[in-house]
Amino acid sequence: MDRILVAAIRELNDAHKADIAEAAKRHGFTALFFDSVDEALPHLSEAEVIFGQSVRLSQNAPKLRWLCSPSAGVEQFTAPGAFLNPDAVLTNSSGAYGVTIAEHVVMVTLEMLRKQPEYDRIVAAKQWRRDLPVRSVKDSRIAFLGTGDIGREAARRFRAFDPASMVGVNRSGSDRSGLFDCVINVNELDAALKNTEILVISLPKTQETVRLLDKRRLSLLPDGALIVNVGRGAVIDEAALAEELRAGRLLAALDVFEQEPLPCESPLWDCPSLLITPHISGNMTLAYTKNRMVSMFLEDFENYCTGRPLKHMVDLKKGY
Amino acid sequence: MDRILVAAIRELNDAHKADIAEAAKRHGFTALFFDSVDEALPHLSEAEVIFGQSVRLSQNAPKLRWLCSPSAGVEQFTAPGAFLNPDAVLTNSSGAYGVTIAEHVVMVTLEMLRKQPEYDRIVAAKQWRRDLPVRSVKDSRIAFLGTGDIGREAARRFRAFDPASMVGVNRSGSDRSGLFDCVINVNELDAALKNTEILVISLPKTQETVRLLDKRRLSLLPDGALIVNVGRGAVIDEAALAEELRAGRLLAALDVFEQEPLPCESPLWDCPSLLITPHISGNMTLAYTKNRMVSMFLEDFENYCTGRPLKHMVDLKKGY
Repeated sequence: MDRILVAAIRELNDAHKADIAEAAKRHGFTALFFDSVDEALPHLSEAEVIFGQSVRLSQNAPKLRWLCSPSAGVEQFTAPGAFLNPDAVLTNSSGAYGVTIAEHVVMVTLEMLRKQPEYDRIVAAKQWRRDLPVRSVKDSRIAFLGTGDIGREAARRFRAFDPASMVGVNRSGSDRSGLFDCVINVNELDAALKNTEILVISLPKTQETVRLLDKRRLSLLPDGALIVNVGRGAVIDEAALAEELRAGRLLAALDVFEQEPLPCESPLWDCPSLLITPHISGNMTLAYTKNRMVSMFLEDFENYCTGRPLKHMVDLKKGY
Repeated sequence: MDRILVAAIRELNDAHKADIAEAAKRHGFTALFFDSVDEALPHLSEAEVIFGQSVRLSQNAPKLRWLCSPSAGVEQFTAPGAFLNPDAVLTNSSGAYGVTIAEHVVMVTLEMLRKQPEYDRIVAAKQWRRDLPVRSVKDSRIAFLGTGDIGREAARRFRAFDPASMVGVNRSGSDRSGLFDCVINVNELDAALKNTEILVISLPKTQETVRLLDKRRLSLLPDGALIVNVGRGAVIDEAALAEELRAGRLLAALDVFEQEPLPCESPLWDCPSLLITPHISGNMTLAYTKNRMVSMFLEDFENYCTGRPLKHMVDLKKGY
């Protein structure tokens, strides 16, 4: 009897499915495709490999050996009981989203520096005004909290805008990409914040990152600093940030939130100097992103079937 | 008696004025500063050098030898009678605006490709939706109609986004910047348009550029192509473009218009897939732009006073 591969990702197109089915067949697997978790659930009893992002898949697959999440963030899999089979391993698709998220980061940074939301309102009222003071990425001091795929792709693009400096911040204090002017350890974050005009956050949600940007650290940022968050909302104390925004002290462009969809009662709605986007920086509508996500899965599927180490393995203790 | 330099630019700050006054004094000039053309008019009878952008200055300065416009576009000075003294020469400040206009070009391109205007409306209604299909600069085919300071600075930034190709289009068919994959003569524009997904226009208004993008040439662009115009509005047939936009065939981000402010009756208001900005891509609110504009003027003031050729000379016949 064939081994079973379950793919429960609505966004896969026919070409993706054909590629996965072909690879599966070559290695003695049957690939089953479902548009939703609910449709997949009755077919998980024999599933050895799952390509999907719901913890309900891993919680209901007793023979699961490997789950690949099409997302980069995988915090839902780090909770106790996330895997019915405790021996299963997890990979993610960090690396598929850097391009599209970096484009989002550059876009919203320029929108906030150039007062585009205000100009949008002026034009919507069919008015004509040209004198709002704008700022530039050129000569700005940028810090990247998180130097993974997203931080690196954003830094590579921002470099072409001639910033004054680009500092990477991560857990090791080192980075081999050469894309940053320097990389510091997150222990040195406080000092770095004081010198940061644009802060790009691409951190996963882990025990160490929750509320890393708390009220005290937010207060270290200089007046007029811009925070761009495309990682996880829990990294920022949203109530403290809302206070800073209402005080006119900081600017922010947030694509991620502690709770999504952003609840009606959130203090962030209607904050001044805040650009809200509904977690779209890295969505799966871009063909390039989907193709990359599938090719990364197929690469690790080859590794899995030939007994080689999986390339995109998640450390469940670290959480990324 | 001192020679007279008149600067009629409201946006100059005290440091700029001090630098200009000091340079003037060193060369036997008195510098007079005015916040408006009307204030300057009574003081033009002896003016030898003018730093300002109104044709009313040059039309009322009988002893004018050199006018430096703080703008890049100088079409107002090419009309007959623009200079009371026909021997006066004209320089412009092309080169001061490339940085800020390039940031605008990248911003609006990403906004249109990523459906940011639609997402803005979704968020303004406090709704949550993530599935609008987005596009990417990566792997897109970009053409730059105009390869001057603006086109080059935009190309340098877009390169970091890994486009499929970047073609420059100008009058000579050549460019030494190395920033484009190839540069073609404007005679070959029609063929280039058929292969263009993003068209960045930074042309001045001249006899040869008016309605260069007419109905026929607009129709050559492939479905879904994006036009970004930061040069002069007269380059595009606005009525024909409005038709294409309403038909859902093209996207556009326009910062310049045949008539500004855009008249109430313009067919462009309320067009779908159109991002209108009120000629702000290269405004003078950015400190870097003003500093560069003043330093370029001072560079040519040294040239003028020491009998060297002016560096930023405008060819009044060509119009740029």
